[in-house]
Amino acid sequence: MSTRLAHFIREVRAEVAAARATGLSIGLVPTMGALHAGHGRLIEQARAGSGFLVVTIFVNPIQFNDPSDYSKYPKTLEHDLAFCAERAVDFVFAPALDEMYPREPQTFVDVRGVADEMEGRFRPGHFRGVATVVAKLFNIVQADRAWFGEKDAQQLAVIRRMVADLDFATEIIEAPTVREPDGLALSSRNQRLTPEQRRVSIALYEALNAARAAIESGETSAALIKERALQVFANYPEVTPEYLEIADPDGMTLVDAISGPVRVAGAIRVGNTRLIDNVLAGRKQP
Amino acid sequence: MSTRLAHFIREVRAEVAAARATGLSIGLVPTMGALHAGHGRLIEQARAGSGFLVVTIFVNPIQFNDPSDYSKYPKTLEHDLAFCAERAVDFVFAPALDEMYPREPQTFVDVRGVADEMEGRFRPGHFRGVATVVAKLFNIVQADRAWFGEKDAQQLAVIRRMVADLDFATEIIEAPTVREPDGLALSSRNQRLTPEQRRVSIALYEALNAARAAIESGETSAALIKERALQVFANYPEVTPEYLEIADPDGMTLVDAISGPVRVAGAIRVGNTRLIDNVLAGRKQP
Repeated sequence: MSTRLAHFIREVRAEVAAARATGLSIGLVPTMGALHAGHGRLIEQARAGSGFLVVTIFVNPIQFNDPSDYSKYPKTLEHDLAFCAERAVDFVFAPALDEMYPREPQTFVDVRGVADEMEGRFRPGHFRGVATVVAKLFNIVQADRAWFGEKDAQQLAVIRRMVADLDFATEIIEAPTVREPDGLALSSRNQRLTPEQRRVSIALYEALNAARAAIESGETSAALIKERALQVFANYPEVTPEYLEIADPDGMTLVDAISGPVRVAGAIRVGNTRLIDNVLAGRKQP
Repeated sequence: MSTRLAHFIREVRAEVAAARATGLSIGLVPTMGALHAGHGRLIEQARAGSGFLVVTIFVNPIQFNDPSDYSKYPKTLEHDLAFCAERAVDFVFAPALDEMYPREPQTFVDVRGVADEMEGRFRPGHFRGVATVVAKLFNIVQADRAWFGEKDAQQLAVIRRMVADLDFATEIIEAPTVREPDGLALSSRNQRLTPEQRRVSIALYEALNAARAAIESGETSAALIKERALQVFANYPEVTPEYLEIADPDGMTLVDAISGPVRVAGAIRVGNTRLIDNVLAGRKQP
């Protein structure tokens, strides 16, 4: 059976209801398109874990705090459909803007705490937009399981918290970050980088690894660990670090002293492109 | 089959899934208990329109801006269960506080615009609490249809807007306000009134009717209509009007000049009790 494409919510509801009526479990991979091998990993995991697999492709304007980031976001629908077909996705939902937002939205899903630091601080309104569109997609698809990438670790924590707080029936599953041979995390925004920008973008992962090495060598002061990590950027004058933080992996609150596993997360700017990445680090509790 | 009672979300999910698997449509009536004939009307309508009918009873703390209103809210579970059994409700979900809020919530559903005026203005945070708990109940029960009373007209408009904006699959159905012989709208809070307070509480409905009469006589100035309505309270010194407003029935924005159907809504205080009511009024478009 080939991958079907739909643009309207009513088509998704009908297809999902029909699949469910035959006893199939429903899987969901929400994306903004411009699919790459990182999405491929998500989709392959989801394919194995779903009876009927829905991939959504929608560049959600209300999660972009920067209008030019929104307008420049790569759009590659034809490629994306072939990509999904190769991976035996059952159904692609690619709604137009006015199908998702037929009127000025008045309802927003607001997550606090877990959404406050890091991306939440540097991209005001971002997680409100993410939580709102994910709530919409969860209500449209009513999946049994949905897959999200570890690359957006805080987003994953925000969505897990939303699901727990609002009692969504969808189980959230995490897929690991996929990296280029040199370690750069795959991201649709990498497409915007010039060859030189692409080369120096590795600075972020190097800095995260420097933090992880410091933690694994026994350093417990977050301030000292961050200082060591930020030194990496001295070698990359073309790269502007936006933040590098060490956070509790579930609650995403910043930690001052390492006493267990932590998420080290950062954001940089390279030219006009903003990139994020993160690693898990830390000793087991003594 | 008798009415079953459950206190845990997992029980609701299992019961609803079993009912749905037999092809029954799922109906939901969310309540805060202290059931009266107004709820009876809702439940009877819902009974007729549902294969499997769930009534929820939960006094939701996060929608009370006034802690003493929350602590004084009447609790009559034994009566409520008998009330539901008499009306052939299939399933009552009466969760404890820590089943609905096992941790400090970080996620809220925030509705603007439709939630800004009237109750939204006088009860800060009220509609955020309502929208959040209704989203939770919708996710737990996943009903095909849910019934709400016209008595809380702005709440109904807020929930309709939330359902539209967030693409909930639950259809919202309105049930008309039920009134005492003298016109007082039924409310669980009426239980708190002394006989004298009960007598003068009719002031609100009288004022709403005065506004409606002015509108139906052709008056179009909201300011003049409100002035005429508020004169009613001169006869009721024990009653303090909180607001009396004329709003667009869907968007719940205040109108200055009547040009079509409007919702006239008000709130009063009688002793320590706060009561609300509303009527639909207005000429057809010329």
